[in-house]
Amino acid sequence: MPAMDSPAGPFPVSLDIAVAWGEMDAYQHVNNTVYLRWCESARIVYFARTGLLSRKDQEGVGPILARQSIDYRRPVSYPDTVRVGVGVTRIGGSSFTMGYSVYSLAQQAEVASADSVIVLLDYRAGRSTPVDAALRAAIEELEGRAV
Amino acid sequence: MPAMDSPAGPFPVSLDIAVAWGEMDAYQHVNNTVYLRWCESARIVYFARTGLLSRKDQEGVGPILARQSIDYRRPVSYPDTVRVGVGVTRIGGSSFTMGYSVYSLAQQAEVASADSVIVLLDYRAGRSTPVDAALRAAIEELEGRAV
Amino acid sequence: MPAMDSPAGPFPVSLDIAVAWGEMDAYQHVNNTVYLRWCESARIVYFARTGLLSRKDQEGVGPILARQSIDYRRPVSYPDTVRVGVGVTRIGGSSFTMGYSVYSLAQQAEVASADSVIVLLDYRAGRSTPVDAALRAAIEELEGRAV
Amino acid sequence: MPAMDSPAGPFPVSLDIAVAWGEMDAYQHVNNTVYLRWCESARIVYFARTGLLSRKDQEGVGPILARQSIDYRRPVSYPDTVRVGVGVTRIGGSSFTMGYSVYSLAQQAEVASADSVIVLLDYRAGRSTPVDAALRAAIEELEGRAV
Repeated sequence: MPAMDSPAGPFPVSLDIAVAWGEMDAYQHVNNTVYLRWCESARIVYFARTGLLSRKDQEGVGPILARQSIDYRRPVSYPDTVRVGVGVTRIGGSSFTMGYSVYSLAQQAEVASADSVIVLLDYRAGRSTPVDAALRAAIEELEGRAV
Repeated sequence: MPAMDSPAGPFPVSLDIAVAWGEMDAYQHVNNTVYLRWCESARIVYFARTGLLSRKDQEGVGPILARQSIDYRRPVSYPDTVRVGVGVTRIGGSSFTMGYSVYSLAQQAEVASADSVIVLLDYRAGRSTPVDAALRAAIEELEGRAV
Repeated sequence: MPAMDSPAGPFPVSLDIAVAWGEMDAYQHVNNTVYLRWCESARIVYFARTGLLSRKDQEGVGPILARQSIDYRRPVSYPDTVRVGVGVTRIGGSSFTMGYSVYSLAQQAEVASADSVIVLLDYRAGRSTPVDAALRAAIEELEGRAV
Repeated sequence: MPAMDSPAGPFPVSLDIAVAWGEMDAYQHVNNTVYLRWCESARIVYFARTGLLSRKDQEGVGPILARQSIDYRRPVSYPDTVRVGVGVTRIGGSSFTMGYSVYSLAQQAEVASADSVIVLLDYRAGRSTPVDAALRAAIEELEGRAV
């Protein structure tokens, strides 16, 4: 697990993403929605590593984004690469909370932090379903600690 | 069918789309990829009207984009609404060609024209499949002429 | 001002936006980032109506998004049109908070609600600047009440 | 210069771009517009290497996309990385043509090829301007041959 002061922060999974020129908007900074695409890309890597991404096809159980919040600390512009750290910070009954840190390699500074609440959904039944022991174990193994 | 000199050009289907501020890039004009999103949105309306959109789920036969080309005539900026005209200009063995005209209501001018080749794909067999009589009839009825 | 039970909620500005087919992702619902593009589009209309959009070019003072949070209540799919209501819910020293409600016309239900904190930035000085009397007056006129 | 049979084809500049999960559309393949974002990202690298990207701010002379065409050879899905090769294939009076090859590392196959016509624009005068000797020299040095 990275140390607290690493670019990815306290998070066990991190992903480097190159900023595309076309992601800047008319204010000549990367558009606010792109930061959430970055978080999504890191989240998908986390889901793949815990087996959650393939369970949707196999068992009809998958994650759904219920809520997210983001603090924009600094504008980002092209060229740059962002390092997105992601981890699970809390496990609830049928949901869990993920935290994100977005760090600019060009600026050598955190440019955003975010949180999201993921609900586990049984797509066939159309309702939420409990976080089972297998998923909890996969998350805790990835986190390297009890959550 | 609209007259040749209407904003939608000679095309039987047209769709008005509001320009989003966030679609402008750092050059402060709508990004080049957005014009093709507009064409796609008009194409989907056309597919829906000919029954092609629902056939993919029902029969496993659906359209796939094989080629497109676009001429950018004028930059577009927010605020504006574009009127996208679309039609089928040629029917081949297992493909057809669509034409598009993108007209800016703010500029009162055509800002782009485009063409695309659509191949009819049998998704189950993984290969192209002939344009059948029913699809040809639906297209010709929408076009108001033999194609 | 619309009544509390109108689709746009208690917000004075609303904008109807057609869902584009291409905004759906592999889960066959509109991608989470698109909801924030919708909020942005409504926010820009609000900025234009209070004169804030043109002040950036004229005076070098403009809005910057510092924080946002969003609750996703229901998935959205094509075809649909969303009605986005937006208003200012609080004015601080050099920032203000905006609220949003996203309502699906096809589902006849609110599909998301969101909040964002906007900081007023003096782009030349590179620091925040107080919400002045003129901006406050423009906001309160649009809201139809003291904020 | 890469050999003709390399993934980047005959092009002197290449850029590896990771596919984002969220770039897939409801057909569960990367959306057609994203391929053109990839070409744009490679084009911007090419522009930067020939000094064209900074000339817009310095001299008011910059590139504008006048036309593009693309052949989609294979669908792309997440996870994958595409290698985009780009080069200048022809220099005209006040324009030049760029070619692109998009190669999937996961599929080990070319998934698209594209061409675009770039016009050199004097943004202050609002009209096209000749490809000057310095730009031609920068392009030919990058290409490693007379164009």
